[in-house]
Amino acid sequence: ACGLFAEVAQAGPVFHFGEDDQSSLQINYALQLWAENRSYTSANHEGSSTDTYLRRNRLTFFGQYNDVIGYYVQLEATGDSRGGVDDRDVFYRDAYLTFDFRDEVRFIAGRFKNTFSRENLEACLEPLTIDRSDISYTPFAGTRDTGVAIWGNLADAAFQYRLAIMDGREGENVPQKAPRVTARVHWSPLDPEFDYGYRGTYLGTQRVFTIGAAYDYQADAAYANYTQLSNSKDYKAWTVDGFAEYPFSSGTYTVSGAYFNYSLGNAINEDPDPTLPVNTELEGFYVKAAYLLPSPVGPGRLQFFARHNGSEYQLPGGALDRRINAAGFNYYLNGQQLKLTLEHQRIDYANPNPTNPVLQDNFQTILGLQFIL
Amino acid sequence: ACGLFAEVAQAGPVFHFGEDDQSSLQINYALQLWAENRSYTSANHEGSSTDTYLRRNRLTFFGQYNDVIGYYVQLEATGDSRGGVDDRDVFYRDAYLTFDFRDEVRFIAGRFKNTFSRENLEACLEPLTIDRSDISYTPFAGTRDTGVAIWGNLADAAFQYRLAIMDGREGENVPQKAPRVTARVHWSPLDPEFDYGYRGTYLGTQRVFTIGAAYDYQADAAYANYTQLSNSKDYKAWTVDGFAEYPFSSGTYTVSGAYFNYSLGNAINEDPDPTLPVNTELEGFYVKAAYLLPSPVGPGRLQFFARHNGSEYQLPGGALDRRINAAGFNYYLNGQQLKLTLEHQRIDYANPNPTNPVLQDNFQTILGLQFIL
Amino acid sequence: ACGLFAEVAQAGPVFHFGEDDQSSLQINYALQLWAENRSYTSANHEGSSTDTYLRRNRLTFFGQYNDVIGYYVQLEATGDSRGGVDDRDVFYRDAYLTFDFRDEVRFIAGRFKNTFSRENLEACLEPLTIDRSDISYTPFAGTRDTGVAIWGNLADAAFQYRLAIMDGREGENVPQKAPRVTARVHWSPLDPEFDYGYRGTYLGTQRVFTIGAAYDYQADAAYANYTQLSNSKDYKAWTVDGFAEYPFSSGTYTVSGAYFNYSLGNAINEDPDPTLPVNTELEGFYVKAAYLLPSPVGPGRLQFFARHNGSEYQLPGGALDRRINAAGFNYYLNGQQLKLTLEHQRIDYANPNPTNPVLQDNFQTILGLQFIL
Repeated sequence: ACGLFAEVAQAGPVFHFGEDDQSSLQINYALQLWAENRSYTSANHEGSSTDTYLRRNRLTFFGQYNDVIGYYVQLEATGDSRGGVDDRDVFYRDAYLTFDFRDEVRFIAGRFKNTFSRENLEACLEPLTIDRSDISYTPFAGTRDTGVAIWGNLADAAFQYRLAIMDGREGENVPQKAPRVTARVHWSPLDPEFDYGYRGTYLGTQRVFTIGAAYDYQADAAYANYTQLSNSKDYKAWTVDGFAEYPFSSGTYTVSGAYFNYSLGNAINEDPDPTLPVNTELEGFYVKAAYLLPSPVGPGRLQFFARHNGSEYQLPGGALDRRINAAGFNYYLNGQQLKLTLEHQRIDYANPNPTNPVLQDNFQTILGLQFIL
Repeated sequence: ACGLFAEVAQAGPVFHFGEDDQSSLQINYALQLWAENRSYTSANHEGSSTDTYLRRNRLTFFGQYNDVIGYYVQLEATGDSRGGVDDRDVFYRDAYLTFDFRDEVRFIAGRFKNTFSRENLEACLEPLTIDRSDISYTPFAGTRDTGVAIWGNLADAAFQYRLAIMDGREGENVPQKAPRVTARVHWSPLDPEFDYGYRGTYLGTQRVFTIGAAYDYQADAAYANYTQLSNSKDYKAWTVDGFAEYPFSSGTYTVSGAYFNYSLGNAINEDPDPTLPVNTELEGFYVKAAYLLPSPVGPGRLQFFARHNGSEYQLPGGALDRRINAAGFNYYLNGQQLKLTLEHQRIDYANPNPTNPVLQDNFQTILGLQFIL
Repeated sequence: ACGLFAEVAQAGPVFHFGEDDQSSLQINYALQLWAENRSYTSANHEGSSTDTYLRRNRLTFFGQYNDVIGYYVQLEATGDSRGGVDDRDVFYRDAYLTFDFRDEVRFIAGRFKNTFSRENLEACLEPLTIDRSDISYTPFAGTRDTGVAIWGNLADAAFQYRLAIMDGREGENVPQKAPRVTARVHWSPLDPEFDYGYRGTYLGTQRVFTIGAAYDYQADAAYANYTQLSNSKDYKAWTVDGFAEYPFSSGTYTVSGAYFNYSLGNAINEDPDPTLPVNTELEGFYVKAAYLLPSPVGPGRLQFFARHNGSEYQLPGGALDRRINAAGFNYYLNGQQLKLTLEHQRIDYANPNPTNPVLQDNFQTILGLQFIL
């Protein structure tokens, strides 16, 4: 089923070389420039603040070595100039090889997106709303991890499976180093989603209905009793998600949602090591929906969207539990290649922190400009 | 007036692609390798030192997406190997989009050179002397800032205007986050300087006379009384500058100068936050001049130059106030693409620090090799 | 003798441009992905650990500006994701210009491999075993240094000389900053090794016998009495090395070895500055050997190898003194461009540390996948 969908229509230059021109290199550049107004400044400053920064800023080099073997390497500096922190260090966001023996049996090796949540796997540059939800990041190796995955499409890509053996949690606080294992399946009976990455919207070019589920596991990821180095706990997480997008004559409608459950034997509420993240014990969900007008509005296409996220941590006093409501629009001047997005978010804490403005009810408005070469 | 001046004659490869080949990508590499001898080593070591380092080291990817939209992204590690600090982190020195609707109305958005001083806007790889003066950097976002600028050329580029809304000073020590606003105009009646960037020399290919002025402002940039979080002050700066270069049969003569005045309500001498830079209260100037011989000398062209900078801080005891005298030559083996520069600098402090060799009268000699692919 | 050997057969795309297409740019990507099992975790955790990481991860841009002048610039993030440290900062591993006037007189300027030990000069992506030995790195500027080298081949490349003036040790703990001087010669009477870099194996394509020797020197590199800032000592090191590889009908045999002697007036055992490395007083050697089967095994070529390293530091109680025995194989699916390596190492300490597992006898097994575009 490979090749059914067109790749991003225009993009950076592609070079063919090597024996019979079987090798290729494509160079892309992508920038998300955000201007943000926020109702607080920092934990110590409750005044509002404005900030312009480079949310994503990526040079990408990728291609095929031959029919089977491909490569992908991406330089990034996330959130450069955010909060006045300029000239952030560049790092390799992705660096991996692909081995595509056939559509049913594909391998990825290196540093690449972990294969747990649909939303993390939705392309960073093809989201539905301005960005994904925090809850779609796993506690360890939030968005990318290092290791190997096998995946493939079955039954004309109506089914997809993925199995990844990755590093997961590492370091000297891990009781016993075991690999992280992630398994994911989806069913995509209409126009199938057959790539390793999903998209947040297909802009009405596809008829998609996909439901997926994933399980994430690492044995002995933390001590519940770090003082005694005892009571080792396993990390377990699961998620289910759905996505539907359908073009009608009245416009294209998108709805998507997911539920998440992360746990680590409640170690966070016992006597954990100091580096254990608070989101190891977390339940949450998001729903998001959009409507893309059927005809252009001025020189571009207009898509309204809304999102609702909920997070329940298992922390004392219900700390950090919150709901996020957001709404806005995308204005596609040339598909995802040149896009303006405006999103307004309201964050409501179930139990606001009495002193820290970051953990009190707040709002932010973001105007985003996206460019992809 | 666009296109009047040739761009740098030779440079990295250019690739055309996309529909009707309207998109382009150019890849450049530029290296400034400096060997430096200095009369001191550090604040704790008054012995002389030698050092070879990579003053600028840049991979640049830029081009046009279409006739209107362009992009520019540049990787850099400044001063790599200076003082024995090797393998410095690479960051995005520039990352911006350009929207050139017509010569009178152009926009830049992203991270790019702030538009205050002429010398900061003179291309880093086309200076007159080995480098610009410290005083041409603003206290906040010294060379680059993040935001949006509108600019354009009027009256056949005899006049140029620029207006930028940028981040300016940010973070939790800023009383109230307001945007930084920078305005700049110049008059360039002969061969006009119509680019966003200037050059330190045109090597006799142009007849240039330009005078410019700029104003820089950010409301509520610091507390004069940080202890009480009161007495908020505005940042204000202004500069005037001139540049003239004219080729005669006896050679090409260049003279340039600028005056700078930075102020922030004298907060630095009251009770400021600990991160307020000392150059928020500063007055200074530079003058520089050069003579390019009319005929080649050996395989290249020889240009002698001299510079004088003065800085007066408003600090107790006249600390940091200094004069710099420098002289040297550029030897252009192939224009700016392959150039040797030798500069000798003497730094004289009005009130030398009694113990710190860095703040005592000193000198340095720099041999620089510049290469641009 | 230049051009006798083919460069790496296939590699990234090459672009020609400029006047008469005399300039070129080649873009390469290289990844070494390692999966490692180790008998300890850290100084505080003696349990075994597994780890997958990106040992080398490099984007390289290089080429010729014209017949004489070349350039080479390489981005890297070493050991990315090792020990759970993800997203390591990218830096310029190499950045230099080459001036090749003729085979007897060549210059390199910038940041490039220091020219002391053969093994450090063996290409990182063309080793014989999975990696080089620690002892082949010098105490200051272990693998790369900044400065200038002159080198060339004499007598049809049977002899090669190199002389480098580099930064060496720098910073305020250096008594008096003098340049580091490195000299190296080799004799290569059969198929000559005429590049600045060596290879760990030629895979049976050459008949090579090379012996080399080098001397490394920096005056006044450290105080033996740092408290009094007195008793300044010179750094001196020397090495001899040999390499032979010969293809027979029974297969290709490779043997190589080197001896190293580093000294800095025994300052490390007196009262040195706190940043003086322990390997300033060190004696060591390696021997390595390999056998490449004459015919393919399955789709690739199989090469067995073994290595033995010994290090004797001059530290109290014989601390750190150790032997390393390693064996494994390379499986070349397409020369060095796609290769699997498995190596098992045993590290035996002469005087194991009583509490720190890192400094006790241990072993590690590494499976490496190498890809070069």
